[in-house]
Amino acid sequence: MCRFLAYRGHPILLEELVAEPEHSLIHQSLHATEARTGTNGDGFGVGWYGERDTPGLYREVHPAWSDENLRSICAQVRSGLFFAHVRASTGTATSRANCHPFALGRFMFMHNGQIGGWHAVRRQVEAMIPDNLYTARHGTTDSEALLLAAMALGLPDDPVAAIAAVLSRVRRMMDGAAIAEPLRFTAALTDGRDIWAFRWASDAKPATLYWRQDSARLIVVSEPIDGHRDDWEAIPSGGCIIAREGHPVRVEQLMAVPA
Amino acid sequence: MCRFLAYRGHPILLEELVAEPEHSLIHQSLHATEARTGTNGDGFGVGWYGERDTPGLYREVHPAWSDENLRSICAQVRSGLFFAHVRASTGTATSRANCHPFALGRFMFMHNGQIGGWHAVRRQVEAMIPDNLYTARHGTTDSEALLLAAMALGLPDDPVAAIAAVLSRVRRMMDGAAIAEPLRFTAALTDGRDIWAFRWASDAKPATLYWRQDSARLIVVSEPIDGHRDDWEAIPSGGCIIAREGHPVRVEQLMAVPA
Amino acid sequence: MCRFLAYRGHPILLEELVAEPEHSLIHQSLHATEARTGTNGDGFGVGWYGERDTPGLYREVHPAWSDENLRSICAQVRSGLFFAHVRASTGTATSRANCHPFALGRFMFMHNGQIGGWHAVRRQVEAMIPDNLYTARHGTTDSEALLLAAMALGLPDDPVAAIAAVLSRVRRMMDGAAIAEPLRFTAALTDGRDIWAFRWASDAKPATLYWRQDSARLIVVSEPIDGHRDDWEAIPSGGCIIAREGHPVRVEQLMAVPA
Amino acid sequence: MCRFLAYRGHPILLEELVAEPEHSLIHQSLHATEARTGTNGDGFGVGWYGERDTPGLYREVHPAWSDENLRSICAQVRSGLFFAHVRASTGTATSRANCHPFALGRFMFMHNGQIGGWHAVRRQVEAMIPDNLYTARHGTTDSEALLLAAMALGLPDDPVAAIAAVLSRVRRMMDGAAIAEPLRFTAALTDGRDIWAFRWASDAKPATLYWRQDSARLIVVSEPIDGHRDDWEAIPSGGCIIAREGHPVRVEQLMAVPA
Repeated sequence: MCRFLAYRGHPILLEELVAEPEHSLIHQSLHATEARTGTNGDGFGVGWYGERDTPGLYREVHPAWSDENLRSICAQVRSGLFFAHVRASTGTATSRANCHPFALGRFMFMHNGQIGGWHAVRRQVEAMIPDNLYTARHGTTDSEALLLAAMALGLPDDPVAAIAAVLSRVRRMMDGAAIAEPLRFTAALTDGRDIWAFRWASDAKPATLYWRQDSARLIVVSEPIDGHRDDWEAIPSGGCIIAREGHPVRVEQLMAVPA
Repeated sequence: MCRFLAYRGHPILLEELVAEPEHSLIHQSLHATEARTGTNGDGFGVGWYGERDTPGLYREVHPAWSDENLRSICAQVRSGLFFAHVRASTGTATSRANCHPFALGRFMFMHNGQIGGWHAVRRQVEAMIPDNLYTARHGTTDSEALLLAAMALGLPDDPVAAIAAVLSRVRRMMDGAAIAEPLRFTAALTDGRDIWAFRWASDAKPATLYWRQDSARLIVVSEPIDGHRDDWEAIPSGGCIIAREGHPVRVEQLMAVPA
Repeated sequence: MCRFLAYRGHPILLEELVAEPEHSLIHQSLHATEARTGTNGDGFGVGWYGERDTPGLYREVHPAWSDENLRSICAQVRSGLFFAHVRASTGTATSRANCHPFALGRFMFMHNGQIGGWHAVRRQVEAMIPDNLYTARHGTTDSEALLLAAMALGLPDDPVAAIAAVLSRVRRMMDGAAIAEPLRFTAALTDGRDIWAFRWASDAKPATLYWRQDSARLIVVSEPIDGHRDDWEAIPSGGCIIAREGHPVRVEQLMAVPA
Repeated sequence: MCRFLAYRGHPILLEELVAEPEHSLIHQSLHATEARTGTNGDGFGVGWYGERDTPGLYREVHPAWSDENLRSICAQVRSGLFFAHVRASTGTATSRANCHPFALGRFMFMHNGQIGGWHAVRRQVEAMIPDNLYTARHGTTDSEALLLAAMALGLPDDPVAAIAAVLSRVRRMMDGAAIAEPLRFTAALTDGRDIWAFRWASDAKPATLYWRQDSARLIVVSEPIDGHRDDWEAIPSGGCIIAREGHPVRVEQLMAVPA
């Protein structure tokens, strides 16, 4: 049960959302409210778009709450599109390569959830990774594997369909392996322009996800960073939001996935 | 508010107390029960006596709950006298040198508490460190400074008197600096044979400390590692225990310190 | 080009070989003599047998030369069979899971060399890992993959044949991928009793490996730790040594592998 | 013997100097040419001015050559004034707080050199730190102590005089302690606008320091990053350069310090 945050809008210092709010992501690393585990201390990461089509990344294995580098970078880096994530491992090691967000070309991805019984289906899920992306498998998380597998299912052309397809396939693999634990997928994806955010779980108990838009700012959060839930809109269970640059946010169902 | 554990008895694998109990120290690093902060993720350390008069140390800046090295070392190292500590920083940096236990010659020391207003009195406290030990000031914690200052006040000869003296002096320094925050000192000390454990606070609210002795085994813990508080004896507020090798444990008051 | 050391004999403190000699492994981490790269600063590891059938491990991503924990552990841990390794990465990340030695059940393994063009054949090599060991794939190195693949080829029953077989297969995969870079394999393996050490390369330029035996002590090293090459016996290129407990060391050729 | 680099000019991506040149600072971390120690693997740091009067810092204890975060940050952060440093410890621990550059308010400082016999004079040097800056003593290096002591001697008003004064005083302390080892000080300082660079040693053997200016760009380096020494001007032993914004660079002697 990780916590994350996505922002798109006029360029702001990362700290405005990551460090300063009363219930900021750094605060949530130690005191999450809506998570089953209140501590998200198994590493963290920030990724931002600025000088290039590909994002910058700072990911570290320490808890976010005490990392001086994180505070300094967030106080100096200004971006109009960034992700931030604090991790509570569901079993895989605490290494930089296992920290979110993951960058892949111009894409960036972060995940809160898990493939239940991961060890039993890991090989099958990794087999979905296309050859040309196999060297991009840097860590051992289910999250990174889901992203790479979704690339083979058309993610660059239709992220929602690709995510639905990968969840559907993984669900069948889990069924085949008689895994009783759920598949849970609360996640955010961007190509540096558009943002997609997903909230789905095979047991209909996906981790929370909220969003808010005012003027040109879109913020997506695991839990409200100001502590006021009323000011935020929950993404419905089994749904996703599609926030194309210059278009209104659309809320959709992840159609292909029976939840 | 850290959590710690001390053991003396027949040699056992460290994991028997550090990792295996339902409420082990590694468990407490993520889910402490009796602490104000439930998370103790700002580094950890184990120290043990074995091959030498001086202790071995493994201290690391990561949370204890996910450290593979810690589990492996605790599964392989057998010792008849060891300390273990998980840290929740009260403000100083997360570095190895700031992790407990601290070793100094044949002595080993760990602390749960703090000098309130540390920054305001740090210079005065560090001024108490004797010249010959100044190079042993490796970190920036109040805890390490207290140990080094107590050395100058006769700790090798009379640990209880030296600790009482250093607490008394630091308390006066804090008064001089008009510091309202308390001085709290729950700690354990050993010379490789005897163990002293202290529980004192200037506001009479010292962190908890329990001990238990059966046959030749003495265990001192911040909170019961088996979850059964009735099986443990609380060290009284303002008191300490003196566990000399081959002698019954004595409970005493820290006489020189008005609490 | 990493550097490593293996010891079997009467139990000694690890530091006797790892830290104390003029040309110790810790010294070699900064100043290797016979290696193409003089610096081996991409992590390190020690593994030892003691209390269990499975080895203890301390592996870390820092350079060995400045690691206080390594010095303390080597000063306190006594073992009759241990491995130590300092790493110079050939391209994979510096993470604990990529540090040698690797432990697998009662086996322990460390490697100096590389699969040329690793990224091009990684998928094929990983496909050789048996299902029941796939969850033991913790990192991304060619070294760990070679060990796991060799398990499927009978390593527990006949290590020399299994290693020859895995090298032969990987060599063919490399040929199939038109990789011009060599496959180099200087390595050591143990099951906690016997030791096997290998020195082979497809370009007949394997990394150096020496051994010495006196009374009951066997030491295998990448380069002489006393700086006196005359006192050490070189393992011939394309060869291996088999050091079964209680038997004289045998030098053999790795028959199945055309070098 | 560390290596460092300072830049002021039109804003550039840090990577243009830190990562890309054939003999870049990251390259020097593994293969320094003009240094007594070829390896500078005891941590690193970059500091830059951008969004604030105070600099951003990314400092880490790993070797620079393998740090993914460093490469990513240098590929995304653009600055008109930045410092970068790779560290070879002269004895103090590898911790973030001991990595250069050091930031203090709007000032930033980095050092290559050492106070010979540091442990013998550490207490005296630290005694020079003014009370109001004592909490800024985060690490244990001689370098940080020199900066803080120089603050008490008027560094904000006259950096050259303050540095000369602190070197003179420390030299006398070393004489008083009968230390035969030299005091060496090759360093760079900035307030976010002006840059001062120093090259002095009590044994007249200061570490190298070069500079180059073209149009509006000033670069100061421990050793030429393009491998062409002829294109760079050496700062004379015992001298310094003063590069005030909008003024030509002046080369001066550190008058107050007998070398």
